[in-house]
Amino acid sequence: MDEEFAPHYEPADALQAPRYTGIRTFARCPYVSDLSGLDAAAIGIPFDTATSNRPGARFGPEAIRAASIALRSWNHELGVDVFKSLSVGDLGDIGITPGNARKTAGQIASALVPVLEAGISPVALGGDHSMVLGELRAYAEVHGPVALVLLDAHADVWDSYYGERYFHGTPFRRALEEGLLLPESSVLAGMRGGLYSANDLDEPRRMGFEVLTCNELRTLRPQEYANRVRERVGSAPVFFSFDIDVIDPAFAPATGTPEVAGLLPHEALAFIRSLAGIPFVGFDIVEVAPIYDGPGQITALLAANVAWEFLSLRALAQQSR
Amino acid sequence: MDEEFAPHYEPADALQAPRYTGIRTFARCPYVSDLSGLDAAAIGIPFDTATSNRPGARFGPEAIRAASIALRSWNHELGVDVFKSLSVGDLGDIGITPGNARKTAGQIASALVPVLEAGISPVALGGDHSMVLGELRAYAEVHGPVALVLLDAHADVWDSYYGERYFHGTPFRRALEEGLLLPESSVLAGMRGGLYSANDLDEPRRMGFEVLTCNELRTLRPQEYANRVRERVGSAPVFFSFDIDVIDPAFAPATGTPEVAGLLPHEALAFIRSLAGIPFVGFDIVEVAPIYDGPGQITALLAANVAWEFLSLRALAQQSR
Amino acid sequence: MDEEFAPHYEPADALQAPRYTGIRTFARCPYVSDLSGLDAAAIGIPFDTATSNRPGARFGPEAIRAASIALRSWNHELGVDVFKSLSVGDLGDIGITPGNARKTAGQIASALVPVLEAGISPVALGGDHSMVLGELRAYAEVHGPVALVLLDAHADVWDSYYGERYFHGTPFRRALEEGLLLPESSVLAGMRGGLYSANDLDEPRRMGFEVLTCNELRTLRPQEYANRVRERVGSAPVFFSFDIDVIDPAFAPATGTPEVAGLLPHEALAFIRSLAGIPFVGFDIVEVAPIYDGPGQITALLAANVAWEFLSLRALAQQSR
Amino acid sequence: MDEEFAPHYEPADALQAPRYTGIRTFARCPYVSDLSGLDAAAIGIPFDTATSNRPGARFGPEAIRAASIALRSWNHELGVDVFKSLSVGDLGDIGITPGNARKTAGQIASALVPVLEAGISPVALGGDHSMVLGELRAYAEVHGPVALVLLDAHADVWDSYYGERYFHGTPFRRALEEGLLLPESSVLAGMRGGLYSANDLDEPRRMGFEVLTCNELRTLRPQEYANRVRERVGSAPVFFSFDIDVIDPAFAPATGTPEVAGLLPHEALAFIRSLAGIPFVGFDIVEVAPIYDGPGQITALLAANVAWEFLSLRALAQQSR
Amino acid sequence: MDEEFAPHYEPADALQAPRYTGIRTFARCPYVSDLSGLDAAAIGIPFDTATSNRPGARFGPEAIRAASIALRSWNHELGVDVFKSLSVGDLGDIGITPGNARKTAGQIASALVPVLEAGISPVALGGDHSMVLGELRAYAEVHGPVALVLLDAHADVWDSYYGERYFHGTPFRRALEEGLLLPESSVLAGMRGGLYSANDLDEPRRMGFEVLTCNELRTLRPQEYANRVRERVGSAPVFFSFDIDVIDPAFAPATGTPEVAGLLPHEALAFIRSLAGIPFVGFDIVEVAPIYDGPGQITALLAANVAWEFLSLRALAQQSR
Amino acid sequence: MDEEFAPHYEPADALQAPRYTGIRTFARCPYVSDLSGLDAAAIGIPFDTATSNRPGARFGPEAIRAASIALRSWNHELGVDVFKSLSVGDLGDIGITPGNARKTAGQIASALVPVLEAGISPVALGGDHSMVLGELRAYAEVHGPVALVLLDAHADVWDSYYGERYFHGTPFRRALEEGLLLPESSVLAGMRGGLYSANDLDEPRRMGFEVLTCNELRTLRPQEYANRVRERVGSAPVFFSFDIDVIDPAFAPATGTPEVAGLLPHEALAFIRSLAGIPFVGFDIVEVAPIYDGPGQITALLAANVAWEFLSLRALAQQSR
Repeated sequence: MDEEFAPHYEPADALQAPRYTGIRTFARCPYVSDLSGLDAAAIGIPFDTATSNRPGARFGPEAIRAASIALRSWNHELGVDVFKSLSVGDLGDIGITPGNARKTAGQIASALVPVLEAGISPVALGGDHSMVLGELRAYAEVHGPVALVLLDAHADVWDSYYGERYFHGTPFRRALEEGLLLPESSVLAGMRGGLYSANDLDEPRRMGFEVLTCNELRTLRPQEYANRVRERVGSAPVFFSFDIDVIDPAFAPATGTPEVAGLLPHEALAFIRSLAGIPFVGFDIVEVAPIYDGPGQITALLAANVAWEFLSLRALAQQSR
Repeated sequence: MDEEFAPHYEPADALQAPRYTGIRTFARCPYVSDLSGLDAAAIGIPFDTATSNRPGARFGPEAIRAASIALRSWNHELGVDVFKSLSVGDLGDIGITPGNARKTAGQIASALVPVLEAGISPVALGGDHSMVLGELRAYAEVHGPVALVLLDAHADVWDSYYGERYFHGTPFRRALEEGLLLPESSVLAGMRGGLYSANDLDEPRRMGFEVLTCNELRTLRPQEYANRVRERVGSAPVFFSFDIDVIDPAFAPATGTPEVAGLLPHEALAFIRSLAGIPFVGFDIVEVAPIYDGPGQITALLAANVAWEFLSLRALAQQSR
Repeated sequence: MDEEFAPHYEPADALQAPRYTGIRTFARCPYVSDLSGLDAAAIGIPFDTATSNRPGARFGPEAIRAASIALRSWNHELGVDVFKSLSVGDLGDIGITPGNARKTAGQIASALVPVLEAGISPVALGGDHSMVLGELRAYAEVHGPVALVLLDAHADVWDSYYGERYFHGTPFRRALEEGLLLPESSVLAGMRGGLYSANDLDEPRRMGFEVLTCNELRTLRPQEYANRVRERVGSAPVFFSFDIDVIDPAFAPATGTPEVAGLLPHEALAFIRSLAGIPFVGFDIVEVAPIYDGPGQITALLAANVAWEFLSLRALAQQSR
Repeated sequence: MDEEFAPHYEPADALQAPRYTGIRTFARCPYVSDLSGLDAAAIGIPFDTATSNRPGARFGPEAIRAASIALRSWNHELGVDVFKSLSVGDLGDIGITPGNARKTAGQIASALVPVLEAGISPVALGGDHSMVLGELRAYAEVHGPVALVLLDAHADVWDSYYGERYFHGTPFRRALEEGLLLPESSVLAGMRGGLYSANDLDEPRRMGFEVLTCNELRTLRPQEYANRVRERVGSAPVFFSFDIDVIDPAFAPATGTPEVAGLLPHEALAFIRSLAGIPFVGFDIVEVAPIYDGPGQITALLAANVAWEFLSLRALAQQSR
Repeated sequence: MDEEFAPHYEPADALQAPRYTGIRTFARCPYVSDLSGLDAAAIGIPFDTATSNRPGARFGPEAIRAASIALRSWNHELGVDVFKSLSVGDLGDIGITPGNARKTAGQIASALVPVLEAGISPVALGGDHSMVLGELRAYAEVHGPVALVLLDAHADVWDSYYGERYFHGTPFRRALEEGLLLPESSVLAGMRGGLYSANDLDEPRRMGFEVLTCNELRTLRPQEYANRVRERVGSAPVFFSFDIDVIDPAFAPATGTPEVAGLLPHEALAFIRSLAGIPFVGFDIVEVAPIYDGPGQITALLAANVAWEFLSLRALAQQSR
Repeated sequence: MDEEFAPHYEPADALQAPRYTGIRTFARCPYVSDLSGLDAAAIGIPFDTATSNRPGARFGPEAIRAASIALRSWNHELGVDVFKSLSVGDLGDIGITPGNARKTAGQIASALVPVLEAGISPVALGGDHSMVLGELRAYAEVHGPVALVLLDAHADVWDSYYGERYFHGTPFRRALEEGLLLPESSVLAGMRGGLYSANDLDEPRRMGFEVLTCNELRTLRPQEYANRVRERVGSAPVFFSFDIDVIDPAFAPATGTPEVAGLLPHEALAFIRSLAGIPFVGFDIVEVAPIYDGPGQITALLAANVAWEFLSLRALAQQSR
């Protein structure tokens, strides 16, 4: 398509149309099915079969979209006008198969490949973390194995639960087995809470990942964190996965396996923003189970803001091209 | 448009795509902006400025759409396949002006007239009941003054609140003043709860309306109610307005001015179904303030079902043409 | 006081001052400490020490007052203008001693005697049912032993719990022991749910009470119920106690010992209204534990309406003097 | 074991130990692993992978146990002292495999067979309805194919969802295919809500089941319903399955696929009690998803009472042996 | 009035009368209508028409009063006995007109002028922030234009929303236009979240305000913040406005336009306390929309404490006179 | 018992049996009544009569147990495998007498003495703080007077409330009067919020306690806090009491007397962990009133983690013996 005539998709203007009017799409961006003309797109993955404690992340995309009506366009901290810089649409949800994590991983991969091939940066809205296996298959198919920047309370490299190998605590081990990840280029941070055994943190390190516990991360200044990440990822294609449970349960109660004493939101946002300049190939924000939110739906609001910071990173990377 | 080539809009198949996947539109019907090819359409009116007790009906359309994912197609009680019979879309929300009920009434009327002119039966999702004034202006413009079938705990014919004349307790008086209604062809039913004075029920009767209190209505068999309605409406164009507060608060807590001891849902649905055959020109379901629902969101679910019964009436009327 | 110059206390006009403005008093009636000029008065008893399952009725008076902003003046079913007929104030709360049911009973009695002596009909807002012992002491002191009209899921004539004799399941046995009640003039109705033993219904009958289980009551027409009550109470002074748990938990979840399959509100209100004409000496509505309500606070709204029906009965009795 | 020396398991006495003390077992009955000495037992099946809308029934057994502290012993309506008549324990939960409905069905069957062989009547606490396939395998293995008495909003005989054949809407079709059921001896009642097609009610009838829609059922007197059931089941072994969604969502919001306008609890309990005398071989109560309850947890309370009515039926059948 | 005989209004003693007894007034202070004898007074402004996202602040005064029962008298951090130092009453609510922000501003101004003229320091309880225009009119009438100390996530100097100029995001622009404010003596702090454009922070600065974003504020020690404020306000009359949304949504979910990553309460309270010594002429605490709180009502509790810190500042200023 | 053959009690393996299966005991440890073979034990004290604001802590033990299913075994921060190091059981609840704090204190003491004599470290789950008097009687009987490490928003040394001397704000004064405590060996920390008078902090200091307000505590590094505690406690037997209200209400809304601006969980956990090495004789975690939690039940989750950190301290002390 001739770029000059490409459509520019952006949210409805909340100073004209009240922000609570209209069908709930991400940030009130247009709901599109045609992939042309998009720089980035929200895409829901409402799957939660593979969760070991509280279910409900199937309604995560709905809740994040509903909360995202509060988003505006200018990111003051990063100095970027998100929706002027980027053409952003909402591609709706990927078809998934409840009760069948293995089949769903395939569906996710198939759905994402054309999006990536169209040059669109996806911001996937989850959904339990098992979905990242399907995502990584698509990224690896288009970009080759990728570096992983993970903010999460759990490293998610366990082998299986009750014999089930496709589960929300196992995706990165499966991805490693499938050759989708570059562990030595990856940084996993935010791990905390009780573990099954001392081995739980040693094992990802043996696999090649850098692992920063939440208490280690908390003591780093954002720039220090950013330096470590930049050093690790180098020039590899990088994927950013944000599990909402990296945040303290007071700010993000609506998640499947909350762990006490997590990051505060302003800390987490500062870590995200510190990575400005890295040309991420894609993003996800996972494990939002909205029924566990109170009426204020603050978890969903935070997740929507994380997605918006992702778009800000994407906009900045575009500007610096 | 050549009818044979008109599109048929219907919900995604929940046996293929799980019902919680996809952007939230009414009953998972397509989100459309082109008016051609539609028999009926859901349309949101997220306005709640004009409410005298609990606000929040601005989020009514969102909640009804979210709950409507549970709807299926075959109405066993009425023997009609709703979405096979009708081409149904979701037209999104009408632009409204918060804080300005008078201006909003105009916006609603302007938005609905082309829908009616296109031969589409609207099912408006509210929103506080003040919105019905804008609706009635559109209906009267297209069809002339209309008969009103109202199920509501309140007759909504008060004159003003604190000097405000455009309010959720006054729309039918305003409509009468504007010549939009045929009171002698109308039936208001379900009134209950304390009143400001004995005059509150006498006045609508003096205006020409038939008024059935909730306790009177409760003693009628559905067919008796239907007979009264049919007798009154005759061959006038008929509009059906359903205020969710006609239902008992246990089943519909999420509303602005709940009144105890209301109808039970199976009673209300039987009254609606009893009117099969009347060719209603349009419908609304109002006063759903979802933040007052519990986590089960049962009010919104009930409202979605009322809208679906409305579509069923519309489908039957179409079949009998 | 010269009656012609007595103040008339009534609610603020909700058509002038929105109903959610002002300090929360019962029905927005004036908060008064002077007993002169009142026909009836709401009075809170925020005590809940003596509850055997869920606590929280100490916040019952607050919640009933908050919900009571929705009340209006004209009772259509009974044909009476409540607040024009009666001068009604809110006397605030009686001082109670948490953790000490025995002492609290004395405090309640002392506080109520002057109210009764001033000719005021109290509508006590509870609070757990143990409070009725203190109430009955006051009534008996002023009127002699009284007949009891009770709507309740439990007969509350157990002897003790874990050795505690002043408890919310024991007040009527204590009252009987103290000679405060006329069992042969009393009707207890609404009993249901599992019992400790078959004896639990036999015992109140042996004490002289008439006992109607909920299933028996449900089959009576209101007039039949009224006839039984009138026959029993004769010319005795009559006290009306309404435990909110007589209502089904869907309509009244906010209570300490809910029992499934209770009365529906329109049934209960019809039973109350059927007693119009009986010159009750006082009323209470107990066991509202608002933290167990959902956001709609429907239990408190129902309790406020029950109190309002009590005032209606009082107004009618006044008119017929 | 010599019966005279068999232990008698019954709840702690709530008049001695307050009902909210102690580990949460069903009705405060002892938690036992030894099968000897039991007449009946509660047993949890915390599985919810196979649900098509709202998940969370995995926490059903926990919530029913928590609510069951309110149960007492004497069933006044049926005239039986449940826990004096029966020795009842809580066997804890059956091991299940989240994400794997097929494997779980096998685990359920294996766990139940020894319980049945020990002559114990299970009351299974669910859990989504897919679990009933495993239950029926156990019953069929011990008793041969069984008659089914079902109270449910859905007939659950669909073939598959998104290709998944082991799902909460398919168990009775699977059971029929496996020869576990006697359709011509079975009665399915309570069906309501929209359907995928007109076929949805015809198909179970073609399979041989008697199907009563909710509106049909509502018009029957309990004795009429009981007569139909008795006629159908004859002398076959009978299993009673109660899906909480047969009840109206106001009384049972906490379920996965609520349908508006359901039975009222007092209606449902009357239907259950009407079957006194039938020697059921076992029971389940399914689809309680407690996170969708409000703070009053009324769905769980109702489910606990349904289980208690089941025990009452069991106790009466024992007495009449 | 002769000061020695002036009444001293203070809360009921919670060690004598349990804190949950009595009509809900601010901090259990007496409800007064006579202005004499008061040093400070709580006054509610239950208006929320002018809110751009979630409504419900009309119930803010009720909720703050309900939560304020937890307040005690001695402020340990500031070393002042609030209710011994000050005579404090609750003046109830100002009459407002729902649906009409312009008229309401006039009503607020008219109601506050006599309070200010009586030398009483108001602590206004909101209500949406549009109300501050009416407040500022009163302050300017009595004191001349005032300096503003604002803690808020938003600068609230937008021009209009959908053509509405009297809205909760516009009051300080309107006030500036009306000459009620001294921008060069004012400090706005706490701004964060996405903006409509880069201009949104530049504009208030061009108007003369000092603007500190939340991230800038967070890095200041309280004394540094206090120094900046003191320098700006000089000897001007100063008004303190606290929008609860300056606080992180985890601590204050119950507000209309929450923004993630706000101040923590102990940070905000330290900033408030750092201003001890400044003789503020009045205070408000706005945008509490209690229906968005969870059952713990923590937003309202925090707002009540902010009001109490305001009274502490007032008491200290009085002592230092 | 021969130690080599003692049973080792530990939780079910959540990688085999999903963590939401099974009867709810603390951390899924076995429910035991026999005291032999245990190193430590959870024990519930469901008493809440003696609470001055919000009741409901009677359901604290239930909620903490329910939340504790999320606990795992390896404490990474302290480097200890809790459930491999210790044999841990759940002893159920202590029998208490609602409405009678004095009698309950005796029951608690009687129940705990044999546990302590068996060498078991109790982790008591409350319950309002009045329960600690009974606990301290048992500790003093077995160990002599003990040092107290208290984290709490309140010092709980008031004398009486409304004449009631056994209340949740008075236990440490009663304990001192009974000679159960060593005040000069004790550290009370976390006090904040308004006080009844300046005396409220002076008085515990006069009694000999060291008192650190929350703001003082917040400025200490964990090691500084630990040094102070170690210095004070010396070689005395030490009891650790943790009132959940020491935590900010955003993280712990579910408590009876919340105070704003409390500790953050990661701060509190660091203070607890800093005390590793001190051989505490026992622990409690009190004032969890779960009905005030939102659906995420984050207060109960935090309390379960505090209990788990206590077990970690116990395990480390055991290792270092």
